[in-house]
Amino acid sequence: MQPELAITIEVAPAFHDLDPMNIVWHGHYVKYLELARCALLQKYDYDYPAMHASGYFWPIVDLRLKYVRPAAYAQKLRVSARIVEWENRLRIDYEIHDAGSGERLTRAHTIQVAVDAVSREMQYLCPPVLWQRLGVQP
Amino acid sequence: MQPELAITIEVAPAFHDLDPMNIVWHGHYVKYLELARCALLQKYDYDYPAMHASGYFWPIVDLRLKYVRPAAYAQKLRVSARIVEWENRLRIDYEIHDAGSGERLTRAHTIQVAVDAVSREMQYLCPPVLWQRLGVQP
Amino acid sequence: MQPELAITIEVAPAFHDLDPMNIVWHGHYVKYLELARCALLQKYDYDYPAMHASGYFWPIVDLRLKYVRPAAYAQKLRVSARIVEWENRLRIDYEIHDAGSGERLTRAHTIQVAVDAVSREMQYLCPPVLWQRLGVQP
Amino acid sequence: MQPELAITIEVAPAFHDLDPMNIVWHGHYVKYLELARCALLQKYDYDYPAMHASGYFWPIVDLRLKYVRPAAYAQKLRVSARIVEWENRLRIDYEIHDAGSGERLTRAHTIQVAVDAVSREMQYLCPPVLWQRLGVQP
Repeated sequence: MQPELAITIEVAPAFHDLDPMNIVWHGHYVKYLELARCALLQKYDYDYPAMHASGYFWPIVDLRLKYVRPAAYAQKLRVSARIVEWENRLRIDYEIHDAGSGERLTRAHTIQVAVDAVSREMQYLCPPVLWQRLGVQP
Repeated sequence: MQPELAITIEVAPAFHDLDPMNIVWHGHYVKYLELARCALLQKYDYDYPAMHASGYFWPIVDLRLKYVRPAAYAQKLRVSARIVEWENRLRIDYEIHDAGSGERLTRAHTIQVAVDAVSREMQYLCPPVLWQRLGVQP
Repeated sequence: MQPELAITIEVAPAFHDLDPMNIVWHGHYVKYLELARCALLQKYDYDYPAMHASGYFWPIVDLRLKYVRPAAYAQKLRVSARIVEWENRLRIDYEIHDAGSGERLTRAHTIQVAVDAVSREMQYLCPPVLWQRLGVQP
Repeated sequence: MQPELAITIEVAPAFHDLDPMNIVWHGHYVKYLELARCALLQKYDYDYPAMHASGYFWPIVDLRLKYVRPAAYAQKLRVSARIVEWENRLRIDYEIHDAGSGERLTRAHTIQVAVDAVSREMQYLCPPVLWQRLGVQP
């Protein structure tokens, strides 16, 4: 059985994330996803510095966000991230919930591919270092 | 025949849009899309201030970005935006191309729905003001 | 004796705060200052929502940042904020230190003035609500 | 006589630069300054890529902004930047004016120092490459 490749972090929107409607501007959610993604990868010792040390960049090639309800200043949010693909590409699914009511506010995913840091060539299979760190089989 | 509901703007990534790989951080593209979307809506006199004056907010409810090639500092980019749905929701499709080579770097779409500014209720049909401004029939 | 009008928060730079030199882009420190300022004002029940409820906006009219050493990805930082003027204007001084070594990385200040939310007139004396919340005499 | 080491660019605040008061959030002005600074340095063929090619980083060590009047969505602004020191450090002074009325909205300065890209040592005298590019004598 595969391990549970997931994490949940808490985030509270800052004043500088608000727009004139007094809600979080839709583009700032990309930062919240990144905070959860980095926390998740850090847990498996494969966050950005470790990625680079392993000889790969992992650019985002696909990003999707579905906004169900807005988020407000200082609202306690739970951002969950879960790795759901790791063979040919790294796909992470996200959900953002209100920490108090549990209501779901946002769903999202990101897809990353490995790029060799020297040749700059995209890898059609994820490099084994990812599987080792995550403790998974491709 | 429907009018051509489209625009193309030029954008050149700023230094503050770059990440440690010396390319534009993926989240900053959301700003480029917004610049094109606002220019397009301005052309039809239905940009943010006009939206609010008409009694509606138009939050983004769906955002998708596909990154084909990275963008660099000061690279001349063309961001095209085209309105492709306006009956129940406002869907805009985007493409970002290198202005020199014409190479496509990014594809994206956003979907917005109208929300009544007073009742805060989501509208399942776009308000007629949108169709009037765009010169379209639902 | 005046109370200690200060707070210290912890911040760790996110990947999206880094620039091509792999350090925090200088403009992002404004966000760290704001996080500390809001936490400090929240402690005295006079954060942004309370400011607006009291009938005043408090725009920043002066901002200064002195950068002594750079900050890196995920580096544990302590951001301290202290209210040092409250009679005619609200001045807050800041220091950012490395949490591990205690080394000072950045010094800063912000100055805010009260603006009446209805008349939009700038107040040359801070409104008494500020003093009451802070528990100070002008 | 020294040449006029100055430039003026036009900027119009984007929707994503606005805060809940419907004005530009104070931290976003740092981006407007950077756009003017980069345009100015580009004029003298010493923008970021050229700085790095010359073997130096030029981090900002001091930033000051004085906000006189707020800026609104799509307001046409003129951002002027002028190099006023280049011997020991690079100091640039900025002014932001409303393009229509000519009213001054913001004053600012930035100070940069040269850091050797290899040794990471701060230079107490600006490297001669700066003077050559600017056509000035120290």
